[in-house]
Amino acid sequence: MNVIEVADPADERLADYVRLRDSSLRRSLEAEHGLFLAEGEKVVRRALRAGYRPRSLLLTRRRRTVLDDVADAFDAPVYVVDDAVAERLVGFHLHRGVLASFHRKPLPGVAEVVAAARRVVVLEDVVDHTNVGAIFRSAAGLGVDAAVLAPRCADPLYRRAVKVSMGAVFTLPYARLDDWYGGLEELRRRGFTLVALTPAPDAVPLAEAVGDGDGRYALLLGAEGDGLSTRWIDQADVRARIPMAARDVDSLNVTAAAAIACYELTR
Amino acid sequence: MNVIEVADPADERLADYVRLRDSSLRRSLEAEHGLFLAEGEKVVRRALRAGYRPRSLLLTRRRRTVLDDVADAFDAPVYVVDDAVAERLVGFHLHRGVLASFHRKPLPGVAEVVAAARRVVVLEDVVDHTNVGAIFRSAAGLGVDAAVLAPRCADPLYRRAVKVSMGAVFTLPYARLDDWYGGLEELRRRGFTLVALTPAPDAVPLAEAVGDGDGRYALLLGAEGDGLSTRWIDQADVRARIPMAARDVDSLNVTAAAAIACYELTR
Repeated sequence: MNVIEVADPADERLADYVRLRDSSLRRSLEAEHGLFLAEGEKVVRRALRAGYRPRSLLLTRRRRTVLDDVADAFDAPVYVVDDAVAERLVGFHLHRGVLASFHRKPLPGVAEVVAAARRVVVLEDVVDHTNVGAIFRSAAGLGVDAAVLAPRCADPLYRRAVKVSMGAVFTLPYARLDDWYGGLEELRRRGFTLVALTPAPDAVPLAEAVGDGDGRYALLLGAEGDGLSTRWIDQADVRARIPMAARDVDSLNVTAAAAIACYELTR
Repeated sequence: MNVIEVADPADERLADYVRLRDSSLRRSLEAEHGLFLAEGEKVVRRALRAGYRPRSLLLTRRRRTVLDDVADAFDAPVYVVDDAVAERLVGFHLHRGVLASFHRKPLPGVAEVVAAARRVVVLEDVVDHTNVGAIFRSAAGLGVDAAVLAPRCADPLYRRAVKVSMGAVFTLPYARLDDWYGGLEELRRRGFTLVALTPAPDAVPLAEAVGDGDGRYALLLGAEGDGLSTRWIDQADVRARIPMAARDVDSLNVTAAAAIACYELTR
């Protein structure tokens, strides 16, 4: 275990961890280096268990020994810094005291990800990292087999998504569609029934739409606010709704709807 | 309709709207004046429909006419400000351009709120306003009849909770327990089966715990992270879990779990 104390937040070796709340900087930096960050002991351990290879670890002084039991398993440097250095580096108080930078893996293709899957979630333009993370956590927890993302869906390995998912983004296999317009055809060809989740009152109640859950199902989930595009709704085999009570509430948020739909699909 | 243009963000008449992200200031200010804020046209309309009485409205110039159709129904002043004034006043860019300050109503007691209810959610120490708002939205949308809050649960009328709930906090009746320790007894006395939601592997699967949904059910939901207290779990009639797949994900977040449990309870 290669432990290095670093006192200067501008030290080049800490460059993976700069300004974590500057999302445009982070996106270009992470894309350029093919890295992602995990935060907190539990989530870092999950990334390691899922086979991701660390570039480095960053620990604050009082948490410096917390990953000792696994640190021998890799040769990445472990940087130990003061709280004040961590705060100046990342841009906020790092109260968990544990960050790690990992190499991304090449993303598998859709064919590979869905090959053995029976139930998949397909996220159209879910652009909020918190929501993507929450949906991955529910889908993985409830037993969905894979996720497929439209080209504009937010990155599951962005720090905020990783954190909210509690590491579920490491264990739920996912792939990204190259083609928004025709991308659902591949799922249909492979025998998936395409279920579009929508608040439309004339859609079929969810439980009825998924029946006894035999067969292969792809659950289509749309953007926050606007929901699924007309194109994707038209492509679906069935439009399903979660029955709503009459109480001046016309829909659920996408993460609540996703949780319920995954539950119904996998029960 | 009493429209007043205001050019100075320090104008006393705008005092209800100062520094919306300063949560300790906001909590004391709102408690002292018995007010709460609603944000965005849709949510403000829902507060009005639910019978809340406005203290004032704050509109940016380009949204100044957006509530004209309802503004005659009350005599509160409507303040119109430039975007720059709004931003200096509230502390961020007010992109929806619509805020309203409302009088709170006296909170009903637990007995009143649950009198005619068949299904209630009981939130122990859910301290995050986003989560409280999300749970209210799911509970109201799915047809839960009321909510009961432990003393330390976050305020459903705090701006962030109101916003995330999309106004569901106005339509789902709720009350607050005075007494955390013995507070559940009243629900039991009224014939509610107390169902504690927990990730514990030896709990009963949720669907089994609520059976065919006949009778009165109180669904107990615990804090983010720690879940329900031992005291409340011991008080419950049944401990229910949402079955998890084995995928290195040991639980759902509280809003996803709440959505699923409300769905199961009200189906």
